[in-house]
Amino acid sequence: MIINVGIIGAGRIGKIHADNLRGIPQLRVKSVSDIEINHLESWAKERQIEVLTTNYYDILNDPEIHAVFICSPTNTHATLIKEAAAAGKHIFCEKPVSFSVEETKEALEVVEKAGVKLQVGFNRRFDPNFRKIQQIVQEGKIGNPHILRVTSRDPEPPNVEYIKSSGGLFMDMTIHDFDMARYILGSEVVEVFAKGAVLVDPAIGEAGDIDTAIITLKFANGALGVIENSRRAAYGYDQRLEIFGDKGAAKADNNRANTVEVSTVEHVSKEKPLYFFLERYTQAYIGEVKEFATAILENQPVVCSGFDGLQAERIAKAARQSLETGVPVKLDQVGQSTAIY
Amino acid sequence: MIINVGIIGAGRIGKIHADNLRGIPQLRVKSVSDIEINHLESWAKERQIEVLTTNYYDILNDPEIHAVFICSPTNTHATLIKEAAAAGKHIFCEKPVSFSVEETKEALEVVEKAGVKLQVGFNRRFDPNFRKIQQIVQEGKIGNPHILRVTSRDPEPPNVEYIKSSGGLFMDMTIHDFDMARYILGSEVVEVFAKGAVLVDPAIGEAGDIDTAIITLKFANGALGVIENSRRAAYGYDQRLEIFGDKGAAKADNNRANTVEVSTVEHVSKEKPLYFFLERYTQAYIGEVKEFATAILENQPVVCSGFDGLQAERIAKAARQSLETGVPVKLDQVGQSTAIY
Amino acid sequence: MIINVGIIGAGRIGKIHADNLRGIPQLRVKSVSDIEINHLESWAKERQIEVLTTNYYDILNDPEIHAVFICSPTNTHATLIKEAAAAGKHIFCEKPVSFSVEETKEALEVVEKAGVKLQVGFNRRFDPNFRKIQQIVQEGKIGNPHILRVTSRDPEPPNVEYIKSSGGLFMDMTIHDFDMARYILGSEVVEVFAKGAVLVDPAIGEAGDIDTAIITLKFANGALGVIENSRRAAYGYDQRLEIFGDKGAAKADNNRANTVEVSTVEHVSKEKPLYFFLERYTQAYIGEVKEFATAILENQPVVCSGFDGLQAERIAKAARQSLETGVPVKLDQVGQSTAIY
Amino acid sequence: MIINVGIIGAGRIGKIHADNLRGIPQLRVKSVSDIEINHLESWAKERQIEVLTTNYYDILNDPEIHAVFICSPTNTHATLIKEAAAAGKHIFCEKPVSFSVEETKEALEVVEKAGVKLQVGFNRRFDPNFRKIQQIVQEGKIGNPHILRVTSRDPEPPNVEYIKSSGGLFMDMTIHDFDMARYILGSEVVEVFAKGAVLVDPAIGEAGDIDTAIITLKFANGALGVIENSRRAAYGYDQRLEIFGDKGAAKADNNRANTVEVSTVEHVSKEKPLYFFLERYTQAYIGEVKEFATAILENQPVVCSGFDGLQAERIAKAARQSLETGVPVKLDQVGQSTAIY
Repeated sequence: MIINVGIIGAGRIGKIHADNLRGIPQLRVKSVSDIEINHLESWAKERQIEVLTTNYYDILNDPEIHAVFICSPTNTHATLIKEAAAAGKHIFCEKPVSFSVEETKEALEVVEKAGVKLQVGFNRRFDPNFRKIQQIVQEGKIGNPHILRVTSRDPEPPNVEYIKSSGGLFMDMTIHDFDMARYILGSEVVEVFAKGAVLVDPAIGEAGDIDTAIITLKFANGALGVIENSRRAAYGYDQRLEIFGDKGAAKADNNRANTVEVSTVEHVSKEKPLYFFLERYTQAYIGEVKEFATAILENQPVVCSGFDGLQAERIAKAARQSLETGVPVKLDQVGQSTAIY
Repeated sequence: MIINVGIIGAGRIGKIHADNLRGIPQLRVKSVSDIEINHLESWAKERQIEVLTTNYYDILNDPEIHAVFICSPTNTHATLIKEAAAAGKHIFCEKPVSFSVEETKEALEVVEKAGVKLQVGFNRRFDPNFRKIQQIVQEGKIGNPHILRVTSRDPEPPNVEYIKSSGGLFMDMTIHDFDMARYILGSEVVEVFAKGAVLVDPAIGEAGDIDTAIITLKFANGALGVIENSRRAAYGYDQRLEIFGDKGAAKADNNRANTVEVSTVEHVSKEKPLYFFLERYTQAYIGEVKEFATAILENQPVVCSGFDGLQAERIAKAARQSLETGVPVKLDQVGQSTAIY
Repeated sequence: MIINVGIIGAGRIGKIHADNLRGIPQLRVKSVSDIEINHLESWAKERQIEVLTTNYYDILNDPEIHAVFICSPTNTHATLIKEAAAAGKHIFCEKPVSFSVEETKEALEVVEKAGVKLQVGFNRRFDPNFRKIQQIVQEGKIGNPHILRVTSRDPEPPNVEYIKSSGGLFMDMTIHDFDMARYILGSEVVEVFAKGAVLVDPAIGEAGDIDTAIITLKFANGALGVIENSRRAAYGYDQRLEIFGDKGAAKADNNRANTVEVSTVEHVSKEKPLYFFLERYTQAYIGEVKEFATAILENQPVVCSGFDGLQAERIAKAARQSLETGVPVKLDQVGQSTAIY
Repeated sequence: MIINVGIIGAGRIGKIHADNLRGIPQLRVKSVSDIEINHLESWAKERQIEVLTTNYYDILNDPEIHAVFICSPTNTHATLIKEAAAAGKHIFCEKPVSFSVEETKEALEVVEKAGVKLQVGFNRRFDPNFRKIQQIVQEGKIGNPHILRVTSRDPEPPNVEYIKSSGGLFMDMTIHDFDMARYILGSEVVEVFAKGAVLVDPAIGEAGDIDTAIITLKFANGALGVIENSRRAAYGYDQRLEIFGDKGAAKADNNRANTVEVSTVEHVSKEKPLYFFLERYTQAYIGEVKEFATAILENQPVVCSGFDGLQAERIAKAARQSLETGVPVKLDQVGQSTAIY
């Protein structure tokens, strides 16, 4: 069986998924839609993409299409999920599902009723380092988890225009770390305290956002967690994680382009971390589409569900509320998840 | 000139200082006092200690004594500092100065008036790793500091009896980390939020204390900080620190007994961190008495003053208050430091 | 322009090249030949390979084919190179070119006359670690090279039947290290001393070969080198290199599947090196076909020429001679390279 | 019991031993002799050294002296050993015992007859890294040893005058590595092949010596070994070792002044190795005198005997002979050890 895929939104991430899908024999990118397609023609031709359209209904209404990748702006996600689910397509949707917990919940209800699969693009769950940590925790090698630490720093901030529509640091950037925290610990966050600062660029503050944050988490299983964020690390993308439990600890370090160490009269040096998410998470991007394909082909649960998307959004909301009020916020005060999840 | 030293309290730490003082040609341990001295006789003889007494006034009243080391229980520190200062002795006092900010302030005022030197035993300031980090920050190599992280985990908790009289995790253990935070950043803490848990041993909770904590700090210079504590790390004493700024980051890793790496069919392994503070901070203990001696001999400021002791206590108090109230606490709400400091 | 490729020999390495060639838009694997093709039919179909044949002349005589990959047994390489060159095809040939220096030289002469490109499959030149080292040396960062060290240990020996026809350790395994030595230093080997032992498996000794070796090299530029080989490292494929010069040193460590470090009461451990060449040199295999394609498309020299193949074989011959005689052997005593190279 | 020690020769190494001996309660440095003592008076006084003399017989004839440290130039060692042994003193002698295998053997015979202890100053046997490796090998953790590698590079060459009287690279510098090889493997060297070069300083070559070397060893147990030497590593003292066996491998890395790692826009860097032997082997120098004291006090064998000194010298001789003849040299061709050892 060949799974035909349609991609809605052919920006940077849509194109990456298209190329990664080519590496999987049982999948075929049949159709791509975008609001502007002239510049995509040669790109699509080289990849033998059959349909290139400005009308995404050409994808949703195509009975040959089994699955859609939603790679359009966040404010379109919830609507597209509902329409795609109604059309009976399996769905891969970039994070976040929406900026509104209610909207996300509505979309998930439609998916639930339609019985299609929905995978949210928390690509880091497919990174070999973090996955290894998750396995170590699952296998009990570090015992009961006590403290989780996530260090997550971007090499440079997005432009201020983007920041204004991004939903803010917690919804745009930390949301990955919130998901990672739940993934590693296998327990829900019950309380959030967020401390933020504008230390990288005053323009970010003027846009109503922060660029530096420390977020403390309390989990249902009693563990504590802390996430450190910065929008700009001079030395590159800093993506580390450490889990500490009663039998030991496990930590994941950054990846580098090579293992070379140079010793001179000045110092002993090695490569900086890989520059940004495209370099660092190359394998993770490949992994998430492979496992999405497997979930469809073998009718298995997805690694990263709509509920996971919802929970990460609720934590982001709580963090924002904590930042604004200056006090910790309990998760159950933020858009309760309903019975079906 | 030979500096004659008297040691008040010959428990474990008093004995360590005695041995380290022997390695400094210009210092001589002349006298030692303790409440019980029979078991100390051969120890003192081997070290050519002239006076062994149960009466510490034999030290304070000895005109040949230039400096005293206060190594008795914490609840005696403030009184001893005042008496020693009044007697014109330079003072090395173990941390914390007292459990009461007011008491500490009183003691510091007496020291101030007497014009003697007072060094507080925050030994970690003399650890080669942390000192190097401090230099890197001072030299501007990482630019303006944005985020400080201190990981500080003991290999095993003290017994519950000790915990009851310890002043609690923040005053007994984290106080070193609070001092380290101020030392590295060169800026005062202005707000503290503490989250704690009892995950290591329920008996610690029953004694009214916690054994696991994450503390978020805000500094006067705008930087944020986070301290992670546990009373028990299965793999040994975990003492790491990372400072992140706009030009880069610096981090100190644990020390190990050797550099050997073994590769087998199972894995690649290296030594665990050195077991506990005596092993890890051997050099730091030597360094702090050497620099105390230098401060006296060359009439220079001490690296770690009474004011440093006071500030660490105030942060510990704020952390406790935050833990109890569940909200952040501003430092200026905790035992204000007075004009002279 | 699309380059059509034919692959002669579809064993493990031929199939790897086929898959890696698919990732390059401007190349197309049109034809594959092997002595037995029944088991290859579905494999070829999935990859849209047009021609599957037992007669490699179907490739050499096809005017649409621009380049051939010679992935058949070593004893066929020289003949195939000559025939492919005569047919005007560019050639990628697995190492070694042949077991005979004279045969190799004959083949290179035909290539030279035909004016086609010949790249020898010393894939390690395309490994990111070793390439970085080579750049560092070229840029003069370690100054004049004094000592080169190559550590090269396989995770397990091939079966004894293979060993009998392999040309021996130096021709089969160390030949990669000999090429690496020349690549890193950019200078020719002038003298070889080889010390060998049978420590892994007596059956290897009975087959007339060794399984453990230390080879000392002297280079034309005065530098010294040493290669350490073992046919079996319990912990996996050990592929390291260090170059030491008058301004410093650079070394490449092994690659691991992830960066995770686990600390427990027993030890601190990390992953073993990647298991064997397929895992370790994944990127190198991709790189060598990409750069071969670029050499053809842009008419540039190949990174790894027939002459490089010849020189590595001559060093392997010298090493064997040294092992047998017990004394150092000068390279100019081994199948002199002729004027044209 | 207090062991009284006399030190013959108060140059750099004699003074280091004097200070390290002070740290051992049961030892006392009573006497020091040197050919010139005026400059030593305050030094000796500060250390409460009772006798300071230009006549070393004042030490050998003093019945209170139990042990002597021979720290004078190498050409006096053999004579002093014989005289000290005849006087019934235990002996710690710096390496090498002599430049002549025959002379060394004569000295060892006198020691044997006198029944005194003789420890040779191969301090590296007491280094925590190398000792750990030795234990790992002894415990069988890496199985049967196959390949030993010693990397040993000084940060700078001695002056040419010293080199002329040093006995050459192998006798002066590599002799430590030869001893280390025997120590780690617990097996005798049976064959040596040495390749040398003058790459650091032509003046060293003009003085008849080399400054760069690769030495291949074959051991009685079948293992192979390689030692890499350079007289000048730009980045400091490079002292590493790796042992590879059928169950795995163990390696010791360099020591650094701290564990700090700095990440900037340029690179990730850490400290260089400790500068030279005084910094690197601080603990080893302390260890060797402590264990010498224990050997005397508890009448146990020394860790590093006269025979060990003799064997290292014989390997150094063989290496020199190999360098000069260009071919491997068998150890049994070099000053045979006699029956008593």
